[in-house]
Amino acid sequence: MTQTQTQTAIITPAELLAHWQGHLGLTRRTLELFPEESLFTFTPAPPMRSFGTMTLEILGMIRPTLEGFKNGGEWSTELDYKNVANKAALLEAWDETVAYLAETWPKIPASRLLEEEAAYGFPACSLFHLALYLIDNEIHHRAQGFVYLRLLGIEPPSFYQR
Amino acid sequence: MTQTQTQTAIITPAELLAHWQGHLGLTRRTLELFPEESLFTFTPAPPMRSFGTMTLEILGMIRPTLEGFKNGGEWSTELDYKNVANKAALLEAWDETVAYLAETWPKIPASRLLEEEAAYGFPACSLFHLALYLIDNEIHHRAQGFVYLRLLGIEPPSFYQR
Repeated sequence: MTQTQTQTAIITPAELLAHWQGHLGLTRRTLELFPEESLFTFTPAPPMRSFGTMTLEILGMIRPTLEGFKNGGEWSTELDYKNVANKAALLEAWDETVAYLAETWPKIPASRLLEEEAAYGFPACSLFHLALYLIDNEIHHRAQGFVYLRLLGIEPPSFYQR
Repeated sequence: MTQTQTQTAIITPAELLAHWQGHLGLTRRTLELFPEESLFTFTPAPPMRSFGTMTLEILGMIRPTLEGFKNGGEWSTELDYKNVANKAALLEAWDETVAYLAETWPKIPASRLLEEEAAYGFPACSLFHLALYLIDNEIHHRAQGFVYLRLLGIEPPSFYQR
């Protein structure tokens, strides 16, 4: 391993945010394509959940994680979105969360993202790893939504467009 | 945006490699769970491809991308894996590629990963963005493999275990 590989960081918080926001945009476009009547009921591969339910998991982790980043050591559980039960309400909650991310992330110092904490039952890791986990989890479930859309005869968005 | 957000990088190449390798391990475990007879033939959501074919796309981008990172400006097309047509051959090609990544990545200076090039028809971007794209693409297709496994009545690996 060259010295620069272990010592020189290359990805800034601003770049990580832009990367995340690109994914959030793609997931929103995926949501928009789901027919209202399928979003919370179509479960072709049990015990896998509906795309609506998986999306609420993605959403429900973002705000508590950002609050943990801000406040340190306080990791509330996933938000409860039981009252979000149709497409319009889901898109509204989505947009509120995306706005909260855009407002909150820039206030978190880079040094804070390098601090290690044990959150959500994971072993202690740098906070930026938690952000990466949330992005990965979103990509993972959105891709499952792509299969659901295809099974419904609907063409998903292009993966490479953000 | 705080100054540290746009100026202080937080993720090193060594950390990005470890993150990538974690995903490659999970995808290999996903591959292992596929029944031989389904890997290249099960296509429940046409025109989506079989998991075997999607995995060859993932594999086929890694080596050419790393060669572009090393050599600069030379971006060969995806590797042709037409002769990889069963599970044993796919796992062998997988392991060779993972070994190539482990050998090659540490030799790429951090400064090189910050250089911008236009590769594969994308607008010019920092090379680390290309590495992120390959990781994202792997997560995306592996998640689709998870749905295929569930449709085949097989439990996928745990997403959070790397």
